[in-house]
Amino acid sequence: MVAVELAHAYRLLNHGPTTLVSTAHGGRRNVMAASWSMPLDFSPPRVVVVIDSRTLTRELVEASGEFALNIPPRSLAAQTVAAGSDSGRHRDKFDHLGLAVAPASQVSAPLIVGCVGWLECRVIQEVHNEQRYDLFIAEVVAAWADPTVFSNGRWHFGDDAKRTIHYVAGGAFFETGKPFEVDAGR
Amino acid sequence: MVAVELAHAYRLLNHGPTTLVSTAHGGRRNVMAASWSMPLDFSPPRVVVVIDSRTLTRELVEASGEFALNIPPRSLAAQTVAAGSDSGRHRDKFDHLGLAVAPASQVSAPLIVGCVGWLECRVIQEVHNEQRYDLFIAEVVAAWADPTVFSNGRWHFGDDAKRTIHYVAGGAFFETGKPFEVDAGR
Repeated sequence: MVAVELAHAYRLLNHGPTTLVSTAHGGRRNVMAASWSMPLDFSPPRVVVVIDSRTLTRELVEASGEFALNIPPRSLAAQTVAAGSDSGRHRDKFDHLGLAVAPASQVSAPLIVGCVGWLECRVIQEVHNEQRYDLFIAEVVAAWADPTVFSNGRWHFGDDAKRTIHYVAGGAFFETGKPFEVDAGR
Repeated sequence: MVAVELAHAYRLLNHGPTTLVSTAHGGRRNVMAASWSMPLDFSPPRVVVVIDSRTLTRELVEASGEFALNIPPRSLAAQTVAAGSDSGRHRDKFDHLGLAVAPASQVSAPLIVGCVGWLECRVIQEVHNEQRYDLFIAEVVAAWADPTVFSNGRWHFGDDAKRTIHYVAGGAFFETGKPFEVDAGR
C-alpha cells in the first residue's frame, strides 16, 4: 500500500464504495460493513459514517475515538456481507472471516490486508449526531491505497477481483463499472 | 416514474450514485450536483447531503426546508458536471442545461425528467451541522423510480445510457457496473 496525499483522500470514497469499519480498544478489535459512509470535506479531509448504537464497533469507536475505513475489493465481498451480519461480541470476526490485518500509522484501528484503500480516521466528537442519528464525523489523518488500482489521485481498475463494490441489499452488490469522462468545461 | 415504497427508498441511494439536488422557493429554482449524499436511516427514511454555504441551492433549501435528490443516468452525465460547476445565480440552470422538470408530490422542488430516481426530501433542521459542516439531514417523504431500471426494491440496469453514475473528479465518472451476489448467510 502506498500513502495517498490527504488532499486526495476524498477520492477513495467519492464514487460511493462500500466500506469496512475497523476498530480496536483495550485489547478488543472489531470490523463491520458500512455502506453509509462518504466524504464530508476536502481539506482537512473529513468523512461521515453511520454506526448503529447496538454494535461492538460503536463501543470501540466511542472508547478509542478512532476507526479506519477499509475499502474492500470484489474478492472480499463475501467477507464484507458476513462482517455486516455477524456480531463481534462473541468471537473475533477477523479470525473468523480470515481477514489479516496490518497496523495503522496514526490510529489504533487495524487495517485490513487485501483492501484496496485505507482511511485512518479520528472522531470529531458531535454527541448529538451520534446519539440521535448514529452519525459520526471524523477527520482523515492518513490514507493509503493499492497502487495497482489507485495512483496520482485516480482509480484505474483492471482485474475484476480488485474492483471496488457497492452494496444494495440481501447480499447483492454492483461492481464499480466502466470509467468515462465528460468535458468538465461544458 | 413509479412510486417506490418508503421502506425501499434507501435502496435508490445505497450503492452511492451521484445525485442532483433540485430546489425551488419564491419563484426561484436551482439544481446542483452532489456526490456527497447517502442514506442515514431506513424507516423513516432519512438522508444526508452536503450543500456548500455559498450556493444558491443552499439559500433555497434554507428558505423552503425542502429539496429533491434526483439520480441522473449516464445520459445526463455532462449536465451533471455542468450543474456542479456553474452557478444558478445569473441564469436558470434547468433552461441552460436543457433539463425538463415535473412537479413533486410533497415538496416544492422540481423533479428532473430523465433521472432514474427521485427522492422528495424535507429538511430536519440541525443548525449546528448546517453551519459548521454544510451537512443537511432530511426525511424522504416520497420516492419514485424509472420502472425499466428499478422495481420491487431492486436496480436492474440494462442499457448503458440508463446506468447510474459515480463521480470521481475533473469530469471523470464510473458507471454502476456488473451486479453480483454473495451468500448473505455465509
